[in-house]
Order: sequence, then C-alpha cells, then structure tokens
Amino acid sequence: MTDPQILREKLAQARTILDEHDVDVWLLLARESDVLGDPSLPLVAGTSVTWESAFLVARNGDHVAIVGTGDVENVRQTGAWEHVIGYVEGLGADLRAQLAARNPNAIALNYSKDNNMADGLTHGMYLLLLDMLDGTPFAERLVEAGEIPNKLRARKSPTELERIRAAVRTTERIWEATQAYLRPGLTEHEISNFMHEQLEERRIGSSWDWKYCPTVTAGPDSPRGHVGPTDIRTAAGQLVTIDFGVREDEYCSDMQRTYYFLKPGETDAPETIHRHFAIVDRCIQDAAAFIRPGVAGWEVDKVARDIFEAEGIDAWQFALGHQMGRACHDGGTVLGPGWERYGQRPYGRLEAGEVYTLEIGLLVPGYGYISQEEDIVVTEDGCEFLAPPQREVIIVPS
Amino acid sequence: MTDPQILREKLAQARTILDEHDVDVWLLLARESDVLGDPSLPLVAGTSVTWESAFLVARNGDHVAIVGTGDVENVRQTGAWEHVIGYVEGLGADLRAQLAARNPNAIALNYSKDNNMADGLTHGMYLLLLDMLDGTPFAERLVEAGEIPNKLRARKSPTELERIRAAVRTTERIWEATQAYLRPGLTEHEISNFMHEQLEERRIGSSWDWKYCPTVTAGPDSPRGHVGPTDIRTAAGQLVTIDFGVREDEYCSDMQRTYYFLKPGETDAPETIHRHFAIVDRCIQDAAAFIRPGVAGWEVDKVARDIFEAEGIDAWQFALGHQMGRACHDGGTVLGPGWERYGQRPYGRLEAGEVYTLEIGLLVPGYGYISQEEDIVVTEDGCEFLAPPQREVIIVPS
Repeated sequence: MTDPQILREKLAQARTILDEHDVDVWLLLARESDVLGDPSLPLVAGTSVTWESAFLVARNGDHVAIVGTGDVENVRQTGAWEHVIGYVEGLGADLRAQLAARNPNAIALNYSKDNNMADGLTHGMYLLLLDMLDGTPFAERLVEAGEIPNKLRARKSPTELERIRAAVRTTERIWEATQAYLRPGLTEHEISNFMHEQLEERRIGSSWDWKYCPTVTAGPDSPRGHVGPTDIRTAAGQLVTIDFGVREDEYCSDMQRTYYFLKPGETDAPETIHRHFAIVDRCIQDAAAFIRPGVAGWEVDKVARDIFEAEGIDAWQFALGHQMGRACHDGGTVLGPGWERYGQRPYGRLEAGEVYTLEIGLLVPGYGYISQEEDIVVTEDGCEFLAPPQREVIIVPS
Repeated sequence: MTDPQILREKLAQARTILDEHDVDVWLLLARESDVLGDPSLPLVAGTSVTWESAFLVARNGDHVAIVGTGDVENVRQTGAWEHVIGYVEGLGADLRAQLAARNPNAIALNYSKDNNMADGLTHGMYLLLLDMLDGTPFAERLVEAGEIPNKLRARKSPTELERIRAAVRTTERIWEATQAYLRPGLTEHEISNFMHEQLEERRIGSSWDWKYCPTVTAGPDSPRGHVGPTDIRTAAGQLVTIDFGVREDEYCSDMQRTYYFLKPGETDAPETIHRHFAIVDRCIQDAAAFIRPGVAGWEVDKVARDIFEAEGIDAWQFALGHQMGRACHDGGTVLGPGWERYGQRPYGRLEAGEVYTLEIGLLVPGYGYISQEEDIVVTEDGCEFLAPPQREVIIVPS
C-alpha cells in the first residue's frame, strides 16, 4: 500500500500531466496485480487488486475506480479513492457507463514499445478492453499513454525526494561499514553476506534482486554483469568494485564503489589505477556539469563517451545513467546512446526533479575493474549529487 | 532464482506440452522482469532479467536464451540454460537468426484475455516483436500460447508438490498457535500481528499481500473482502473467520478457519451456527467427492452452489476454488460459475496433479461469517485434502 501522502501528491501531478497532454482520461487496467502489475499502479491506485479492475484518472479530478466487490474496501483504504464502484459478474458494463458519462476526448493506455515502465498493460488485457468497448465510440479514442506514466514517475514529489535522499544516506552508512570490513582474502560471497546483514539489521530491502545486490566483482577474472557473487577472493594488488543499493520505505538508491587492496609494502595504488580512475571521474564530473533541464539524454551520455573516445579506450557497453526512484531502474528518459535497445528513450529531455544515476565501468588490465556510480537530482539550473561522489580509488590496507 | 531441480522438471514438462499442442517454439519476452515479469518466467527462465530478452523454449529441446550481455552469466547460473546468446545493441538480429535457423511451424506467445497467469506479454512488447519480425515469415506464425503456460503451471512436478505440502503443513502449525492465542477482546490488528510474528519467526512470507494476509473478520460488522485488519474486537457470542496462507520456499498455501467465541456460561455454539456450518461443510465435502480428472471447473462449483440453492440461501459471490502453487491464485481452470469475469476458465477440465482450493463464505445473521477454505490435489481417481479439513466450528472458550 502506497503512503497516502505520496498517493495524493502523485494523483495531483497526474492531473497536471493530463492537461499538458490534452487527454481527458488515463485508464489503468489491472488484475492479480501482486503477480503482474502495471508499474504505474503503486503511484496511482496505491494498492494491489485481485479481480479485473479499472482506474480512471480524470483530468478534471473526478477519478473513479471500478473493482471486484472483494476489493472495494481495499481500494477505499488507500485514502485517495473516494469514488469506488464494486461489481460482481464483470467489469464491462460499469466501465462503459463511466466512459459514456464522461465522453472523454481520448483514453490513454499504458503501453510502450520503448519504455518498460510505461508498458504495464498486457496484450490480453488490451484485447479484452477492445471487446468491452466494441460497438461504443470509445474504442476509437484509445491512445498510447506514452509520456504520461513516464512523467508521473520522473517528476519526484517532495515526499518521494525525501525518501530517495534517506535511501542514499542509508547506503552511505553501509558503504562505511563495508569499507571497514574489507580485507584481502574475503570471497565475494562473504562480502555479499556482510552487506545483506547490514540490510537485515535495518529491516530494509535490496534495490534490485537480492541475489545480485550487491554485485561484487573481485579482480580481473570475476564474471561481469548482473551476476551473483562467486567464491573468488579479494587479493592484495587487485581492484574490487561493488554495485549496491537499498530499498527503504519503497524508494531506492543505486551506487558503485571501487577499492584497491594494497600489497604488503605498498602505500598507494599503482599509477595506472589512478590514471584510469581519473578518466572515470572526469566522465562523471563533466556529465554532471553538463546536466540541466532541457538537455537530451543522449547528449549527457555523449559528454562521457567522448572522453573515452579521446583516450582511445573502448567505451562501457551500457547507458551512462538511468532514472531511479520507486524502482532502481525507474524508466523514462535514459542518459544513453541511440542504440536499438533504448528505443526513443535517449531522446527525452531532462526536467528538474528527475533523479538519475551516472555510471561508468573500465577494465584496468591485470588489476580488475573500476566501476563508479553516483546518484543525482536535476535542479532548475544544473544538478546536485545526492551523496558526495567518490573522487579517488579507496585504498584498503593489507 | 528458481531451484534448478524445479526448473529442469518444468522445462521437461514444457516439451511434452508443446508436443501436445503441436507447437515448435514457445517464445517468452521479458525486460526489467523484477518490476513486471511474465508469470511463466520463474518456471521457464528461472531468473529475472534487465534488458529485453527472449527465451525460446523448443519442442525438440534445443532451447536458447537471447539476453543483454550483462545478463548472460545470470542466465547461465540458473543451471538450466546452456545456450545463451548475449547482445549489446539490440535483440532483433539474434532473434531473427534463431527463428530462421529453426523455421518453427508456430511461435506461441503468452497473451490471454481470460487468464492472467497466461497473459505475461505486455502490449508494448507485442508491438515491438511485430517490428522485429516485420518482413520475415515469422510474423504470420505468431499464435496465442493459450493453454501452454496454464498447463505448465497446473501440472505440479514432484518437487513442486512437495513444496506445497510443506507450506500447508507449516500453515497447520500456525493455525494451532493462533487457536491457542485467540480470546475475546483482541482486535483484528492484534490477531494479524500475532500471525505475522509466526511468519517472521519462521522467516517465511505471506501467501498474498502482507497487508491483508491474514484477513481477519471479527463479528458481523467487519468489512469483507481483501481488506486489512481493523480495530474491531473479537467478542463473546460472535464468529471470527481468518483467511491465511504462507509462502515457503516459493510455494503457497491458502486456507480459512472459523471460530466461535463462547459467551460466559455457554458450553457450545448456538444451534444456528452449527446448522450453517454444516451447509458449508457439505458443499466442500460434496465438491471434493465429485472431483476427478476430466470434470469441468464449473461442474464442481455447481455441486456446491446447488446446495445453497436448495437451502434457499444467497450464494457466495466468488468461485468455489482456484488453483494454487507458486502463486496463491495460480491461474488456469477455475472451479467457478460461467461469469464474465472468469472468461473461459470455468470450462477447463481438471487433470491429475492440479492443486485447488475449495472455499465458501456464509453470513450467520447476528453472529458474523462462516468462511472455510481447504486445499486439495487432484489424483488419478479423485482428490486428496492436503490437510485435514475443518468439519465443525472451532470453539474458543471465554
């Protein structure tokens, strides 16, 4: 169940967004949403539902929920839905009646080829809706909601931004505890277990799948990507990177930190590591300095990618940054190149109030990976780091 | 991550099911599946994925997964996918190449108007697939997977059935503890908290949304349905019903129990309660006696609904039973009437190895609700209760 304050903030934002898009009704369909639920539901409905349900978000504020009778109290208890209709045999009649009474210019539906967070309507539910509206004028007024769910997720409300800041603060405390724990000879599993205990002590969750959050990459031979920890051990003279985030009060963080484990007798990391780290740091700093409302996602990515190109290094194979909020990967505009897999998302323009990661990975041959990730919020004239960025490789004594 | 043994059992079942349906390839598409994932993914892919991914399940056993490079190790670690292709820029080229090499007679996709568990493909992903297959012969060979995902969920493998039995056994222990705790004067919240502590002690989850699992209904004035607990108190001379289940090792139970709280001086529940309970009991027993492979879902429901009709009582407003397994509401055939909201699901025919609930609710005016729910598995010649059914109202001393 969504915090009622957040739900009210998001439903108020939704009206503004519908106005900007000149759409009278945004229609969310759901069923058994604990199993598979439109990502917009927690921001709009505020609860899960069991039977086929329709949430009509109206530009004029006259929202209505149509749900199975067994879900009526459940939806009322959200504190944000005053108008709830319960049905016994099926959704169709009440849905048609509500649409007829409103006669909306358009009915926006959550589907999107590019953006998973705006793509919450299943194909079967879409076909079912066509059946329910067959013979009515409304079948012709169905449109892709497109940017409506994206904007609703992206524009963090005041309470949402507080929650994200709190998640980032907690993550900083866990980085501190983890840094004190690190030493040569630990397996990736041991480090992952330690960080999981930090979460359990605080009774909070991992930002993404528990199995690979944290992702611990020890030395140059550990497999990369979304991978669970292995029995590879940290070793003096090698790098370790950790990708980690928390989910606290339903909001996420997502950060990466890089450590060098000194060899006996060493007092600092080898010069090549500092040199590589400086490239990664420059990418993140220059991209952050470039960010302001109105720039396109791909332009921010390019600032960093151009630095790699100038250095003659193969670039990292993922976007520079993604949005973060209620989900770790929060959809909408991506700070990435115009690759097929990102669809239209790199062409979105940044808005104040959006929260992004900035992340770069780089192999240092023989030592392992440098992998840095920071969290920022776009402001009226630039951006703000949500936690002090790591500017140098962290040295772990042997 | 799915247990590798279960994943192997389900992939073996999938080949049989594809053969039965004369379909060469079953194609599951996914992206950011932690946020919104096809319900078939845990049974087929065995893990979540981040980027757009295709899992081709082949009737000849030559399965292949095509995923973003960052997910390659993740999918390999499931232990069931030997053939994993990683891509950097996009999924389309590899998907077309794999289909061209196989030239399947049909490509089954997970969409369904009626059955949420078979409806895991989003409308946006469907449109994206049409784009990817544009100009190839395969766009013409896309078919609704229909019963394929339903049958795969419904036919419990040996390991799955063991897990469900274990979840039911744990639920019985929690019923025992709860019964010892019950007394007049407790709020619904207090009972819910007690049962949540029972889950937390065992480090297991609730079968459905934690907020309303258990659903505690004290006396006649408590709101019904999927509702969180209230501050209404149990009272002598009233009924309490509890709807509850656990999720243990990824498998669910779902049961309801009814209690009568004696008034001072009373030694038994009023006769009207026994008489109402006997009707509910007869419905469940007669339905169970009727169940065998080959009967249709609606026929089982009708056995119970006819008893209410003969008694001249308004019938409960939901199906007699649903399938249960990895999800509490596990999709497929439903033991319910032919109402719009159940679509074609009541017309499915039962198979050995399927697990169902049998559940009935009935108001006893002035006292509250009797609400019973039992879990059964269909056998070769009938069915078996997974726990001894409650045959009488449970008496709680004052």
